Amino acid sequence: MTRSISELSSPLGLHRVIEPAGGVLPQAAWRLDPDPAIWPDEVRVRVDRLNLDAASFRQLREASGGDPDAIRTAVLEIIASRGKMQNPVTGSGGMLTGVVDEVGSGSPLGLKPGDRIATLVSLSLTPLAVTDGLAGWDGQSEQVPCAGHAILFGRSIAAVLPGDLPVPLSLAVLDVCGAPALTHRVVTAAALDGRGAGNGGGTGPVVAILGVAGKSGSLSAAAARRGGAGTIIGVVPHEQEAVAARRARLADHVVVADARDPVAVSAAIRGAGGPADVTVVCVDVPGCEGGAILSTAEGGTVIFFSMATSFTAAALGAEGVAADVTMLVGNGYVPGHAQLALDLIRAEPRVRALFDSRIDEQPGPKQEPDEQPGPKQEPREDGDGRR
Amino acid sequence: MTRSISELSSPLGLHRVIEPAGGVLPQAAWRLDPDPAIWPDEVRVRVDRLNLDAASFRQLREASGGDPDAIRTAVLEIIASRGKMQNPVTGSGGMLTGVVDEVGSGSPLGLKPGDRIATLVSLSLTPLAVTDGLAGWDGQSEQVPCAGHAILFGRSIAAVLPGDLPVPLSLAVLDVCGAPALTHRVVTAAALDGRGAGNGGGTGPVVAILGVAGKSGSLSAAAARRGGAGTIIGVVPHEQEAVAARRARLADHVVVADARDPVAVSAAIRGAGGPADVTVVCVDVPGCEGGAILSTAEGGTVIFFSMATSFTAAALGAEGVAADVTMLVGNGYVPGHAQLALDLIRAEPRVRALFDSRIDEQPGPKQEPDEQPGPKQEPREDGDGRR
Repeated sequence: MTRSISELSSPLGLHRVIEPAGGVLPQAAWRLDPDPAIWPDEVRVRVDRLNLDAASFRQLREASGGDPDAIRTAVLEIIASRGKMQNPVTGSGGMLTGVVDEVGSGSPLGLKPGDRIATLVSLSLTPLAVTDGLAGWDGQSEQVPCAGHAILFGRSIAAVLPGDLPVPLSLAVLDVCGAPALTHRVVTAAALDGRGAGNGGGTGPVVAILGVAGKSGSLSAAAARRGGAGTIIGVVPHEQEAVAARRARLADHVVVADARDPVAVSAAIRGAGGPADVTVVCVDVPGCEGGAILSTAEGGTVIFFSMATSFTAAALGAEGVAADVTMLVGNGYVPGHAQLALDLIRAEPRVRALFDSRIDEQPGPKQEPDEQPGPKQEPREDGDGRR
Repeated sequence: MTRSISELSSPLGLHRVIEPAGGVLPQAAWRLDPDPAIWPDEVRVRVDRLNLDAASFRQLREASGGDPDAIRTAVLEIIASRGKMQNPVTGSGGMLTGVVDEVGSGSPLGLKPGDRIATLVSLSLTPLAVTDGLAGWDGQSEQVPCAGHAILFGRSIAAVLPGDLPVPLSLAVLDVCGAPALTHRVVTAAALDGRGAGNGGGTGPVVAILGVAGKSGSLSAAAARRGGAGTIIGVVPHEQEAVAARRARLADHVVVADARDPVAVSAAIRGAGGPADVTVVCVDVPGCEGGAILSTAEGGTVIFFSMATSFTAAALGAEGVAADVTMLVGNGYVPGHAQLALDLIRAEPRVRALFDSRIDEQPGPKQEPDEQPGPKQEPREDGDGRR
């Protein structure tokens, strides 16, 4: 089922865009062509599970009043009409796992038939067809067992699931692997640059991580340490998370503060050895831009991983307080990101224990963070990644 | 009217926040205290003109059906109820000009009574009171002559208007001065890093500027040249702007492409010597993230200045095409930004001519870009800055 090499394909998947015609990337397209016949640089995957992103699942559940049949019908209709699982309201997708079925002769991805993989590009740009009516899904969680196929382009990213780690753990790690990779790169550069030397007596940059007890936060802390951080300050929203973060020894100092309160969070970080040379935002609630900016030293860097980040709040916020800080949009792709994250989880048993405990919490109707006791829409660690 | 030094003030202006109470920065506050009595680190300015940002003015005009009395009433009500000119719908403000009236003994801003200044922080965080009912404003443009006073905090930013340049020109330059300053910094670093050496035979980084014929785009091009760019590629939406850009010699190559079409814009930039080591986005329409990312070389940098930038589109867009690019939120504050921009406009007569021609277009009911002939919501140069 490989097409003739004379047919033209694009490593970006432009040849799979059906609507609208012309110049639109697959992610922005309304409809993709999920035809199982692959072009020479493509890979076809036999899908066994979709991992919907948290924002999409929540929207679907609310729109269908929590009725499992209604939510199943909604997901099937999206996939059938769009040729991909992209929630039209949230625009987001998720990721999938499956087994490589066929590899085009010109595919640069290095995969072979039989490889068990997870996609590291969003479902929102991945051609997908489902053949089992999602009969195995209870409609109660983002984890969707399914049968069908998906297409990877020349420039798609996928990771072979390692044999030495449980699949749910690998998925949880891969879901957030861009954060530790970029944190590692930025902290390494700051250390080489001499940031933090003499700043409170440290021998490397001061790194603050908002949401350190979450998945991307804890891995980013481990990556910061490996990148040469002198002092790591972890911020968590309440004492319960502080206990977990301290037990996992994620940071040199763990402080409790509301990341949406710029004065409180910057005072807490300054009190623990800040301001930070590098601040990493891993808290998935809106309104954390000001606190991150105020917590960062002049000439320092803020990395925004939270998808709740507002571009204008960050841009105008820094200008409004005359803060000379470099602000990075957290790119989910850094070469080697999957390997680095998997290495970290193998090397850091305490971080792994934290992941394991979160994964153990998952079966059954998942407790959503905003259903927890405490203030409404409490800052929380990242939920299910960003794709 | 200076308060006692024993009263506590905050360089961020927290002491001026009335609603909500506690921990909110002035920009996020619903209501500020515009009391003319200053704290020791503050400055009071006698205001003579407000410069509403384009997005705010457009919203106000549309909401009031274009009736000048209605729009004047709306602005007065906002200022009276909020103690600042922050459009509650758009969240944006603008800037102001005036004369320094009183300087607190502890003000770090270096201003003295009688200085004629423009604020470089947004009106959305500047305490303001108006005393003339805006009687001198025709309600037809963003330029609002007015009488009243405003307060600058210890960490506010203001520029003394230079004596050798017309005020409208200085204002237009200062309105976008963060863009050339950050472009200069990033291009300088890329040049020192050896980017672009040997890349097509150039001797410095390749810099692409989307929206090069606009205010921030043309100044950024001049700043890129000064920072050591080897090749500058300017992108404009139509031939009319290409003529202006070529006449001003803003770039080595000027290409016409729709910045919202990732395939078209990246092909145009590659055809002119790209991909770019540094891509600068100065086009104020949504949907330019993908094109900027695809136009940038691996390891390169994208600077997003457009306030229409979507954080999620940038983050997921780069990940979706496995692009290892650094993406910067265009911080409007870089130390020395006002001076650099004014220096550039003095040193580059062709850029100045471009500014002059845009300023000359302004009197009377201003022609809005989307009232121009051509496709609706056409990509355009930045209109009235971002504050």
